[in-house]
Amino acid sequence: MNILIAPDSFKESLEAIDVCSAIKQGFSQVFPEASYTLLPLADGGEGTSAVLSYVLHGQWQQLQVHDPLMRPITAKYFLTVDGIAVIEIAEACGLHLLAKEERNPLLASSFGVGEMMVDAIQQGATNILIGLGGSATNDAGAGMLQALGVKLQDATGTVLKPGGGNLNQLHSIKHQALQSLLSGVTISVACDVTSPLCGPTGASHVFGPQKGATVEEVLSLDKALAHFATVTHTYISGDDCSHIEGAGAAGGLGFALMAYCQAELKSGFDTIAKMVELDRHLAKADLVITGEGKLDAQTAMGKVASGVALRTKAINPELPVIAICGSVDYQHTSLDSLPKTDQAVQQLSPQDSPFDAVFASIHQLDSMQVVLKNAYPNVRYTALQVASTLSLGRQLFYTKLHTK
Amino acid sequence: MNILIAPDSFKESLEAIDVCSAIKQGFSQVFPEASYTLLPLADGGEGTSAVLSYVLHGQWQQLQVHDPLMRPITAKYFLTVDGIAVIEIAEACGLHLLAKEERNPLLASSFGVGEMMVDAIQQGATNILIGLGGSATNDAGAGMLQALGVKLQDATGTVLKPGGGNLNQLHSIKHQALQSLLSGVTISVACDVTSPLCGPTGASHVFGPQKGATVEEVLSLDKALAHFATVTHTYISGDDCSHIEGAGAAGGLGFALMAYCQAELKSGFDTIAKMVELDRHLAKADLVITGEGKLDAQTAMGKVASGVALRTKAINPELPVIAICGSVDYQHTSLDSLPKTDQAVQQLSPQDSPFDAVFASIHQLDSMQVVLKNAYPNVRYTALQVASTLSLGRQLFYTKLHTK
Repeated sequence: MNILIAPDSFKESLEAIDVCSAIKQGFSQVFPEASYTLLPLADGGEGTSAVLSYVLHGQWQQLQVHDPLMRPITAKYFLTVDGIAVIEIAEACGLHLLAKEERNPLLASSFGVGEMMVDAIQQGATNILIGLGGSATNDAGAGMLQALGVKLQDATGTVLKPGGGNLNQLHSIKHQALQSLLSGVTISVACDVTSPLCGPTGASHVFGPQKGATVEEVLSLDKALAHFATVTHTYISGDDCSHIEGAGAAGGLGFALMAYCQAELKSGFDTIAKMVELDRHLAKADLVITGEGKLDAQTAMGKVASGVALRTKAINPELPVIAICGSVDYQHTSLDSLPKTDQAVQQLSPQDSPFDAVFASIHQLDSMQVVLKNAYPNVRYTALQVASTLSLGRQLFYTKLHTK
Repeated sequence: MNILIAPDSFKESLEAIDVCSAIKQGFSQVFPEASYTLLPLADGGEGTSAVLSYVLHGQWQQLQVHDPLMRPITAKYFLTVDGIAVIEIAEACGLHLLAKEERNPLLASSFGVGEMMVDAIQQGATNILIGLGGSATNDAGAGMLQALGVKLQDATGTVLKPGGGNLNQLHSIKHQALQSLLSGVTISVACDVTSPLCGPTGASHVFGPQKGATVEEVLSLDKALAHFATVTHTYISGDDCSHIEGAGAAGGLGFALMAYCQAELKSGFDTIAKMVELDRHLAKADLVITGEGKLDAQTAMGKVASGVALRTKAINPELPVIAICGSVDYQHTSLDSLPKTDQAVQQLSPQDSPFDAVFASIHQLDSMQVVLKNAYPNVRYTALQVASTLSLGRQLFYTKLHTK
């Protein structure tokens, strides 16, 4: 029996590979003879490079870059032998890098992301996969562009200072150096945010407050980003990217990557599933185990467990998928709460769930701290119970076969 | 397929019959063609008469009795057509009948228990099963005896006032009326408490504080109960029952029932299992589902889920048992934490669990209030996932059979 174990990480408690390992340990006690494939996954956010480093051949690269407040910091990205660089922007400009009182989206810069990209290109990367998510910035990627050699100047010809708050002074753009730097380099972006750059559903309004912006600052940042988009449009040929879904992701980094770097924005899960050849693994599996920390309403938004379940049913509606999660809001596991992207899945009834069974790993009403701390043994225990029940089902069938 | 559903109630949320029904609903979605037997169980405490009323033929009897503070209260017990009365002492003298500030084990009396027994005998009961547990009293059953016609007098010949605090004045006992009242009546007691009547592990020391006794009151009650035992021994022939395990149950009711009523104390679970013919149901089952609100260290102490699992394995080690519980402390599900009463079970390895699989029904870290309120749908959902997994196990086996 081929068992494919393909879960997300459990946020704040377990890396995806640890979830794999806990599930395998539980299952192995019941099915020691089965063949196990561990395929840790991610949704393009936190853990993406770790997951791909496990499946792809390559090496971690470490370098010094600038953090959101332009202080030196060590960041890392993964570079494969085939020239694929996997960069998580949170490494250089993540909100987690700042103390709460340091948060300031007027000043925070995405400069370090550009530095990582330059380094990757210098190391020979020809494909750069950028995972957006968790940024402290609201500078529409201006800092990143500056690190990539784009000159953003005010009316006096002075180079703009870092931070979205200074973009209203933008007067002219010199981006010739960028074309040669990016020549022969493809950039793709894993992104499940659908915000445009500006307006009520844009970067500043939706994500500004959690990055520390006051109501006035949100309005001023929204204006500054709109101005940046207008000036960009006069210097860069092609469509105005500011209205495209995802332009507002990571404080507008989505916009800069599309407008200046011809990057394509793709669903994080789909991108990673393709890179780790999920479909090929599914085709060989007799049973699929997936999971994520919290299976809830957000599961519909391109998260891993639903992604795996939907891909499984698209490939083979008979192939069983079991989810072993941290917690489960079971109001949100049926198909009518999930995106119907795959044709094969559209044929299922909307009351159906793409999951054949779903289990939480909370066994007692402990504190969140205790639950997070015990995640590994709890997942292993749940996996053991699930495997035992599968085995019982087999045994019951066998018994019935011989007694009827 | 014969599925036996035999759980305990989930304290504070679901009657045992509701647990049965939730589990059956979940299973029926997957196995609509299976045959289900619902066998709600109890451990001799709360819910015992409700459970037996479901399985045995008979009627509820209601009557007015005296509560622990001798105020009128309506109590009920179940009387079968075969003359079995099932009396829960908490109906008449339960701690839940008193407000916190009313608790007073010096005064609280078990008088109402005796009134229920008299009524049952008058209604034709020849077997009385008494469920101990949850009492507010510490009177060694003196109140019950008085209701049964026993005269407890002080040195002046005055009848003792209610409450364990007055037992130190006991001087003489007249119990002749009791013999004729109980003639032809067998009394058995469901009890899993092992305390003797007196001393550091006795009724007053172990249970007095939770009934409202101060340190001084515990000492004085312990002395009063010892005096009661001594005087009893001079008036009642036979062994001194005060040292027997269970004499201290329900504030010493165990002692009075043994010494004066020739009652036999038995494990609550074993007694009820026998009355509902658990073994006969197990012999016909292909799969057993049990459960209880909280599977934990106390599970070893004669609780329902472990009782069902151990009986199952004693009858047929191959018959699978799955527990669907509220919460699970999985440190306490293996056999080395359970009593090894059955020979067949003794042959299992101590690391083994008598449960083939154990599932909690908590899916998210909600408040206790929310968890208790959602117990029914949560149990039904868990049962559905378990049934689905059993079915998958069957399917996997079938697939492998045809592809290998």
